[in-house]
Amino acid sequence: MTSTAPLRRTGGRSARVLDAIYTAVGQLMGEGKPDRLTIPVVAERAGVNPTSIYRRWGDIDELLEEVAVAALTKDGDRAPDTGSLAGDLQAWARIVLEDIGTPKRTRYLRAMVAARDGLAPDCPCLAQRRVMATELIERTVARGERAPSVEQIIDHLVMPLYGRVLMGHPTDQSDADRLAADVLALAEREVARTAGR
Amino acid sequence: MTSTAPLRRTGGRSARVLDAIYTAVGQLMGEGKPDRLTIPVVAERAGVNPTSIYRRWGDIDELLEEVAVAALTKDGDRAPDTGSLAGDLQAWARIVLEDIGTPKRTRYLRAMVAARDGLAPDCPCLAQRRVMATELIERTVARGERAPSVEQIIDHLVMPLYGRVLMGHPTDQSDADRLAADVLALAEREVARTAGR
Repeated sequence: MTSTAPLRRTGGRSARVLDAIYTAVGQLMGEGKPDRLTIPVVAERAGVNPTSIYRRWGDIDELLEEVAVAALTKDGDRAPDTGSLAGDLQAWARIVLEDIGTPKRTRYLRAMVAARDGLAPDCPCLAQRRVMATELIERTVARGERAPSVEQIIDHLVMPLYGRVLMGHPTDQSDADRLAADVLALAEREVARTAGR
Repeated sequence: MTSTAPLRRTGGRSARVLDAIYTAVGQLMGEGKPDRLTIPVVAERAGVNPTSIYRRWGDIDELLEEVAVAALTKDGDRAPDTGSLAGDLQAWARIVLEDIGTPKRTRYLRAMVAARDGLAPDCPCLAQRRVMATELIERTVARGERAPSVEQIIDHLVMPLYGRVLMGHPTDQSDADRLAADVLALAEREVARTAGR
């Protein structure tokens, strides 16, 4: 977790420095494993004084987490709106897998997890997905369809993809589609159970 | 992944050396974050020559992965056998959460994931869970109950727990119970869908 303001809200020189730091982290992560990363190494690559990194982030783990979050959750991202729950879930599962499944993104995600110590209850990655799940559910209900819960979307669509990618379990689009179909089945089951009331 | 023989099949002095190395890794992991761990540090704590660690494991990541696997999958573990699918799933979800949810085990799991580079399709952690899921399903079918698939158990019970713990998402027994209930619902839905055939 970080308490610093997001990059996009700062301007001018400060934004350029942040951009250089983010880019340096991205390049270094792309070149090798995160355990080679230190603040002096990032500072040299970014062409900034290490002191300004220490002042803003305290340690390399906090910087890595912030960069990982920025890489994994695009600001303004919205859940797909295809006109049906089945379509929305399938499209979203594919997008999540694309987001985290490329080698570079997987490295980010693993670095983020390795930087964690204990719980991260307000992890921006998940907070963002919960907001998107809520929007998707609201649209589904507005169409008169029964919807899964936010927890069901997080636990049965998002989390299995994160777990698989983190663990290095081979995962392709057919797995994403299967997860989406199962979440749809859970939502439809709610229809069956509540129809008799 | 490691190609070395498991600890328990070696005997005598060799087994004592391995035991000392495993214990040293466990102690050091328990004391702090895995990025402080190097082979010389492990060797010093275990009272062995670093050369024998380098010879057997090559690098610290391979050693960490082997220790993590040993810590997370107990040999001979079987899925719970409570007499019903509902009971088996609930008991198993609770056991998985207990296995990986303590701070020490979570540290192991994160170290294992951080040590990964690319895919690990034969990850022993998951291979073991798949064997257990298959046994659970066979018992369920033998009782005349409809069962979920192996993939459904892995993706909707095991993976969400791994994902939550790795990401640092607060997770307790009620979450484990909820996941088990959803997997049961998926299995029961198969009854409803196939009953009309």
